[in-house]
Amino acid sequence: MTTKQPIPGIAASPGIVIAKAYVAEAESFVPELASAANPAAEEARLDAAIAKARAELEAIKNDAAARIGADKAEIFEGHLLLLEDPDLIDGIREKLTSDGVTAEYALYETAQGFIEVLQSMDNELLRERAVDVKDVSGRIMSHLRGVPHASLSSIAEPCVVVARDLTPSDTAQLDLAYVQGFVTEIGSRTSHSAIMARSLEIPAVVGAGEAVLAIRAGATVILDAVEGRVHVDPSPERLAEYEAKKAAYDKNKAELALLKDRPTVSKDGHRVELAANIGSVKDLEKVLDNGAEAIGLFRTEFLYMGRSSLPTEEEQYQTYKHVLEKMNGKPVVIRTIDIGGDKELPYLGLPKESNPFLGERALRFALRREDVFRPQLRALLRASAHGNLKIMFPMVAVREEWLAAKRLLDEEREKLKAEGAKVADRIETGIMIEIPAAAIAADTFAKDVDFFSIGTNDLIQYTMAADRMNETVSYLYQPCHPSILRLVQMVIQAAERAGKWVGMCGEMAGDETAIPLLLGLGLHEFSMSAGSVLPARRQIASLSREEWKAHAEQALRMSGHAEVKEFVQQQRRSVTV
Amino acid sequence: MTTKQPIPGIAASPGIVIAKAYVAEAESFVPELASAANPAAEEARLDAAIAKARAELEAIKNDAAARIGADKAEIFEGHLLLLEDPDLIDGIREKLTSDGVTAEYALYETAQGFIEVLQSMDNELLRERAVDVKDVSGRIMSHLRGVPHASLSSIAEPCVVVARDLTPSDTAQLDLAYVQGFVTEIGSRTSHSAIMARSLEIPAVVGAGEAVLAIRAGATVILDAVEGRVHVDPSPERLAEYEAKKAAYDKNKAELALLKDRPTVSKDGHRVELAANIGSVKDLEKVLDNGAEAIGLFRTEFLYMGRSSLPTEEEQYQTYKHVLEKMNGKPVVIRTIDIGGDKELPYLGLPKESNPFLGERALRFALRREDVFRPQLRALLRASAHGNLKIMFPMVAVREEWLAAKRLLDEEREKLKAEGAKVADRIETGIMIEIPAAAIAADTFAKDVDFFSIGTNDLIQYTMAADRMNETVSYLYQPCHPSILRLVQMVIQAAERAGKWVGMCGEMAGDETAIPLLLGLGLHEFSMSAGSVLPARRQIASLSREEWKAHAEQALRMSGHAEVKEFVQQQRRSVTV
Repeated sequence: MTTKQPIPGIAASPGIVIAKAYVAEAESFVPELASAANPAAEEARLDAAIAKARAELEAIKNDAAARIGADKAEIFEGHLLLLEDPDLIDGIREKLTSDGVTAEYALYETAQGFIEVLQSMDNELLRERAVDVKDVSGRIMSHLRGVPHASLSSIAEPCVVVARDLTPSDTAQLDLAYVQGFVTEIGSRTSHSAIMARSLEIPAVVGAGEAVLAIRAGATVILDAVEGRVHVDPSPERLAEYEAKKAAYDKNKAELALLKDRPTVSKDGHRVELAANIGSVKDLEKVLDNGAEAIGLFRTEFLYMGRSSLPTEEEQYQTYKHVLEKMNGKPVVIRTIDIGGDKELPYLGLPKESNPFLGERALRFALRREDVFRPQLRALLRASAHGNLKIMFPMVAVREEWLAAKRLLDEEREKLKAEGAKVADRIETGIMIEIPAAAIAADTFAKDVDFFSIGTNDLIQYTMAADRMNETVSYLYQPCHPSILRLVQMVIQAAERAGKWVGMCGEMAGDETAIPLLLGLGLHEFSMSAGSVLPARRQIASLSREEWKAHAEQALRMSGHAEVKEFVQQQRRSVTV
Repeated sequence: MTTKQPIPGIAASPGIVIAKAYVAEAESFVPELASAANPAAEEARLDAAIAKARAELEAIKNDAAARIGADKAEIFEGHLLLLEDPDLIDGIREKLTSDGVTAEYALYETAQGFIEVLQSMDNELLRERAVDVKDVSGRIMSHLRGVPHASLSSIAEPCVVVARDLTPSDTAQLDLAYVQGFVTEIGSRTSHSAIMARSLEIPAVVGAGEAVLAIRAGATVILDAVEGRVHVDPSPERLAEYEAKKAAYDKNKAELALLKDRPTVSKDGHRVELAANIGSVKDLEKVLDNGAEAIGLFRTEFLYMGRSSLPTEEEQYQTYKHVLEKMNGKPVVIRTIDIGGDKELPYLGLPKESNPFLGERALRFALRREDVFRPQLRALLRASAHGNLKIMFPMVAVREEWLAAKRLLDEEREKLKAEGAKVADRIETGIMIEIPAAAIAADTFAKDVDFFSIGTNDLIQYTMAADRMNETVSYLYQPCHPSILRLVQMVIQAAERAGKWVGMCGEMAGDETAIPLLLGLGLHEFSMSAGSVLPARRQIASLSREEWKAHAEQALRMSGHAEVKEFVQQQRRSVTV
């Protein structure tokens, strides 16, 4: 007997599950072409079905908002809007009256046309939109037919769901008391179902291909969403192997949980701060769950994006205040508006740039548009009364920019005071170091700023002159290249001479190869995605600051990224042994 | 009597002229709508006029090629092609036969339609094209009418030509024995007439506006093409002032000419090399005229651009050989293909990038496309037998890229040797330093390369994260910012430790504020546009290397660009006093 090969797929949300397969039937109702005697009656049937779909979606949306946060539930807002989309809905009505067909046929034909067009698009976001149209039109169809919309919410025994794809509403409605994970034929790490799986913290493998469709209902399935593999009907040996793996995985998770409320200290007693990066208010839960000691980077762009006009000062104030209060005295570094580059705000009508990453981004934009910048500064100043706020300016290249930003902040502070508003007496104010010039000349800022935070994603992009979104040059994303390590060292040395602290809020801060070197170089604060905080805390507890100081000095003199990486791995192994 | 204000304009080609105005009449013949009895006869008249225009243009082209170089004469190639343009010519014919009008009317109407469409274009190149259509259609018209095409070539006394605009053929035909300069109402620094004026080294002010049209024939005109001003009927005081200015300007020019064949030595005897940058073969004349000691950067892109397929190895070999032979043993640094970024090659069908300056440019492209790169390397190797060739790779970020390029070069050398081709025994091979990572980690290259050449245009762009083509962030082009000076120092120190030389081939190398600092930092070779070589040689002769070594150390510690610039200016003044 040959050993069965596992089905490879994309690990979209980590974890290991061993359970029976629950096979979700693909719905593929195709109505026959049938003429209808009374178009008005068909239109009434359509309206009734849409109304039912709307009520259903409202309920799903509210439920999802409560379970996974309002922002993840926004997708259903999109579905509700589709129910009012004139292109789609009027398209159906028109077909229905002009062709004299049934509502089912008109719905199917119109929706199918939309789906085909969207699926043929180059733009991935538009392709994803096809899934939404399918989901919504399927929902209307089930009400038209009086057949209940097949729902995974009725599952009542432990299982791994196996499906062609899961619609957002399917995923949001999974009953996690029973559904322990899922595997799909199509999808990517960024498809709706993958994002939802991570929010729900349910293991998932997506994009596993047609092999998935051959899985029988009730088969034993090992869902390895760490490696991205699915084993069907495993041999007893494989099963034993995975039972051990699952136990180890779960034990590791439990161990990390123990570190949640502990300080971050190296083996030789050197203390650093582990902070989390957040992109919106609903990331707070994860920050607190994972025992981050601070928020090292609060990206405020979400306040400006996905809407049609600027947020008011009051809206911003409420958001910043909420975050500060939730963090209950722990430091919160809020970065001022960082649009431009890959983040556009259509309603500002900014000119198209040939190289947006080298254009009018972030502070460059803010300094020119005081009408946008000052309200944010006021909101921040007012919020400062409610917690431990630190303000950070992004994309500073030269000292004049920092001074200009600081001056605006001071002006707004004076105005607010004159208006009698409450503002904290002292707010630490610093800059991101993400442009090579600012790193190389960090000493020109060190006297006046309170802190630096190194933004490695951009710093590496500019230092290597390689767009971090461009696959062709992605080989140049080399966080441990000596040039990057030297820049980090320059920044830390400049700050230390002036008695200031240095954080890091790019991906590098959570990279297990980089962490020992950064500890050695003397980084004070590491800010990363919340999920990396506990593993980083454990790793740092195993490292000697003094040893890594010497190792980092050695790494700085090496010939390239590969040599440094190998050296770090060697050192880590030699300690473990 | 009030003092008359000068007419401000754009200094398109430098110099000062005092002479009488020659006013070129604008041709504005508009034919009447008239029907023609015999369309076949009209068509024959049209053909005859086109044939005459062709003969005339051929003559102008050959003459221009001899006077200002074949590449500048290419514009007449474009005019000749217009005479065969089916849209234009068939359009005239069609109008002529279908409407039964005269050849004059058909020509005028058709050309006018083209001109209006082109003038309304967003693209400046297309708008410029309207001038060409006007020029060519005017030429055909004058032959149709039997009226000689008004030509400035008949001028027979010293003058400044005053015109609404000069067509390329007007400009090319100026008799420089009499025409000492020109001023036009419209035009920009990059319009055809401005480019031609620089080639002809005739002073010109363009884009001076409607005031130009009021200048009477025979009026005394001071053409100040240094400041970009035209004085009409100047007062005796003004005239005296300008006679002195002109004398000083001409004296300065003569002085510089004396430095042509001298070495470049500082006041205290420190020798450096002054080289020129060239973009194509016909820049060679200027290189030799201006006494450059070498070519510090030969951009090979022109070989690949403005055509529809790759140049062959043989074509490239002939070009490189020609340059090396013309330079007669002086060093020639040839940079391998540097396309991508703002330089596209449509026939390669490269994918559109979101940030082309951070994308697959230059060596990154060359290493992936060996079918393009290897023929260039072979052509370079073969050419090395004919002079003092040095090969330079652009856009190197990390050591692996340099090693990969060097390996390809070595492989092709071995192949050529096996084939019995002649290749120089030793060819210096180096890299451009234009990416911050390469500057910061210059020591990782220094052992293996023969030289570095700092490309400051890109280095500043990446170090400041500011697109050098984007006006909005142009304030960040700060060559004397301490971060840039420190990078230059890092590169020079790394090279010196390994006994290698360092050149610079960006604009900074010819900037008179930067030159003293670069001399102080120990730069070995300065490569600039040919026109800057003699002024730079004179400036360096006035500077003490030892003093500027100390000044540069001070500048490196300053807070920003403004402070450094002021400091340098102060030091220069204090020496002059």
